[in-house]
Amino acid sequence: MNANVKKVDYAVRGPIVQRAVQIEKELKEGVKKPFEEVIKANIGDAHAMGQRPITFFRQVMALCTYPELLDDNKFPEDAKNRARRILQSCGGNSIGAYTTSQGIDCVRHDVANYIQRRDGGIPSDPDNIYLTTGASDGIVTILKLLTAGEGRTRTGVMISIPQYPLYSASIAELGAVQVSYYLNEEKCWSLDISELQRALQAAREHCNPRVLCIINPGNPTGQVQSRQCIEDVIRFAAKENLFLMADEVYQDNVYAEGCKFHSFKKVLFEMGPEYSSKVELASFHSTSKCYMGECGFRGGYMEVINMDADVKAQLTKLVSVRLCPPAPGQALMDLVVNSPQPGEPSYQTFMKERTAVLSALAEKAKLTEEILNTVPGISCNPVQGAMYSFPRITLPERAINEAKAKGQAPDMFYCMKLLEETGICLVPGSGFGQREGTYHFRMTILPPTDKLKIMLNKLKEFHQKFTQQYS
Amino acid sequence: MNANVKKVDYAVRGPIVQRAVQIEKELKEGVKKPFEEVIKANIGDAHAMGQRPITFFRQVMALCTYPELLDDNKFPEDAKNRARRILQSCGGNSIGAYTTSQGIDCVRHDVANYIQRRDGGIPSDPDNIYLTTGASDGIVTILKLLTAGEGRTRTGVMISIPQYPLYSASIAELGAVQVSYYLNEEKCWSLDISELQRALQAAREHCNPRVLCIINPGNPTGQVQSRQCIEDVIRFAAKENLFLMADEVYQDNVYAEGCKFHSFKKVLFEMGPEYSSKVELASFHSTSKCYMGECGFRGGYMEVINMDADVKAQLTKLVSVRLCPPAPGQALMDLVVNSPQPGEPSYQTFMKERTAVLSALAEKAKLTEEILNTVPGISCNPVQGAMYSFPRITLPERAINEAKAKGQAPDMFYCMKLLEETGICLVPGSGFGQREGTYHFRMTILPPTDKLKIMLNKLKEFHQKFTQQYS
Repeated sequence: MNANVKKVDYAVRGPIVQRAVQIEKELKEGVKKPFEEVIKANIGDAHAMGQRPITFFRQVMALCTYPELLDDNKFPEDAKNRARRILQSCGGNSIGAYTTSQGIDCVRHDVANYIQRRDGGIPSDPDNIYLTTGASDGIVTILKLLTAGEGRTRTGVMISIPQYPLYSASIAELGAVQVSYYLNEEKCWSLDISELQRALQAAREHCNPRVLCIINPGNPTGQVQSRQCIEDVIRFAAKENLFLMADEVYQDNVYAEGCKFHSFKKVLFEMGPEYSSKVELASFHSTSKCYMGECGFRGGYMEVINMDADVKAQLTKLVSVRLCPPAPGQALMDLVVNSPQPGEPSYQTFMKERTAVLSALAEKAKLTEEILNTVPGISCNPVQGAMYSFPRITLPERAINEAKAKGQAPDMFYCMKLLEETGICLVPGSGFGQREGTYHFRMTILPPTDKLKIMLNKLKEFHQKFTQQYS
Repeated sequence: MNANVKKVDYAVRGPIVQRAVQIEKELKEGVKKPFEEVIKANIGDAHAMGQRPITFFRQVMALCTYPELLDDNKFPEDAKNRARRILQSCGGNSIGAYTTSQGIDCVRHDVANYIQRRDGGIPSDPDNIYLTTGASDGIVTILKLLTAGEGRTRTGVMISIPQYPLYSASIAELGAVQVSYYLNEEKCWSLDISELQRALQAAREHCNPRVLCIINPGNPTGQVQSRQCIEDVIRFAAKENLFLMADEVYQDNVYAEGCKFHSFKKVLFEMGPEYSSKVELASFHSTSKCYMGECGFRGGYMEVINMDADVKAQLTKLVSVRLCPPAPGQALMDLVVNSPQPGEPSYQTFMKERTAVLSALAEKAKLTEEILNTVPGISCNPVQGAMYSFPRITLPERAINEAKAKGQAPDMFYCMKLLEETGICLVPGSGFGQREGTYHFRMTILPPTDKLKIMLNKLKEFHQKFTQQYS
């Protein structure tokens, strides 16, 4: 079998999650545990944590799915108009037809308009938009397109550490080389250009670094990059001739005061033609995060900028082999970029629902940071954005040794014990990468506020007990 | 960029289809043409050709999408029950939640039950079922899992010629070796074991053949394999230690008298433990074909049999990196394998709709063969199953030379002219592979009967004119 597949690792759905699923089954079968339910704070799955879908989105999706409902006066007119428009762009007016491989025409136009509005008028060309099966699909496709070579000429892909393990997994699968640059935990997981430079220099000894991946807002680390930092990254990419991949799926998830989302596209174009005519960029978005949380639909898009025409033709060919992204996910993506406008019947409800989700997340981000920082031995950076905290944990020497004796990463040992004793399912920091000798876990801020409080307090109690036990 | 990507070719969405899209735009802009619309007979896209979705499926999908409709008495009880059951298996009762990577539990159980019923009680284990993003995704995943090696040890993948170009494209992308075996056009595109043997022998000189792919009913060739043939293939795979991939997405599309669909799984188990305990098999199904035609939902499943436990663990890990197949596609797959039963309120309408689609296809299969065979210079095998005819065309020497001078495959030259003069969009045989010196095209039988008749007669006229012009 494929040796690269064996090298793939994906912690977010790794052994700890498999054990959590098992425990859930055991609970159902009546096995006694010191807790009544498993709380899955391991994955950014908002609906699974009780978040309700946006009404307008689901109304339009129901209308697209079963157009007989277009005659039903229970549905608002703006929902019907959106559905009619999407259906008119589908073969045979059905979302059961294949779409063009790049994605439904009108959806790509709406995406381009959205980007243009978001970025203060900087133009976006529908021809540069590719709809995808979630952001993951787009990221893997671009990596596949760009990686090549054997031995010392193999493509190096720069990724942050900690990182979202889709990157390391795809790089392994493609036989490319992972080039790690470390985020600065002491400065709230910020990105230092000197560290990028160090990593690049070192990598040039053994591979051909050509791609630089950035996740902003950060996953798993929750930081939001400053405009200055993005400018510096773009300047670095231009100087070193790197293709920039900007994972911007959390673009609406910014909570901390003074923080703001700046798209790479916008900053690039504001830096003037010296950069905007030259730096190659792909940026990714999705229906799964922000206030939507529609992960199951696997909707997403990417915009490619300054991609060489021949390479772009290859990209278009490559996506055609899989025929098309799911049409319902495309339709949903359309609604995200073309949401109800002031004056439309659904506007107020939509805004109310959207605001409620985002303010609850902001409150939970703050709460998480505050409670975790009251625990001796846990230190948590502010959750400026995204959906995760990534606190550092101090583990007693004896626990570290016991883990190592078992062949486990120390934070895996810790998370496994936490799961068995409290039912809380987190992902150990080792699944995302971290500086040698440091330990972390990733916890989503998605559980409902009251449950989150209980969870954080259980965690606090566990950590104190664990520390005592192994001291 | 990735050199393997450059080698990828996918005719079903290749240059001829791109030109067809262009022509459609020109027609819209008022450019005068010798026809009024483009007829796309290039792709098995039933809804785009006017086929209506199955009412029950879309009702359940609308209920899953917008559960507020569960209170609406316009929807039948069986549709509501199916929707409730699916939602209960989803995180937070929402199809917007991620599902497990292998697919929703209850859907995998329903798939296993379906296979068991279909195969006369031969057991199917839900643990061996993986839901996929259309069949294409499953096929690529298994190929990815199984291909390895460098130079002479590279994995060889045996595929029929003519073939469905997803196979050649994926093999190229993965850097594996395509091992072609020819179907016997003279015997209605049947599969000769001696030809398999020849191809295998030849391939062993330069690669390591490990996988044998079969498409039954055939795409693009429309044949239905006999039970005997399937037995022979299984015996061959057992003897030569080949992993069998059975693409069975057209399992309900069997039209010719005396033909019947036999699943590889069933035949394998009926051959006794000598085979059923040993031969590795993956079989693929989809929501896109049969009577459903729900291509846009990208639903599908695969069943793996006798897969080595370690390899299966790797498969499970591999699919987890992309998180999950689209939940709406999974729900739809569930309805296909768990359709309305006698006594349920939706049963009669469902059966009426299903039968109408399948009998119209049977009629059009016959019609296509009959009309094409009245044309001198066109010879068409019976369309026993699937959705395509793949007739052989005789091209005048002068046309062949003119095509070659232009650097075009002669049947591409033919199809391009057909498109420009009549608006009919077909895929040239060269996109699927064919014996040197023979020429074909693939045409779907999906257009509505009256349109199909017009199309076939236009084609007849064109062929006569073309032959005259180049004689």
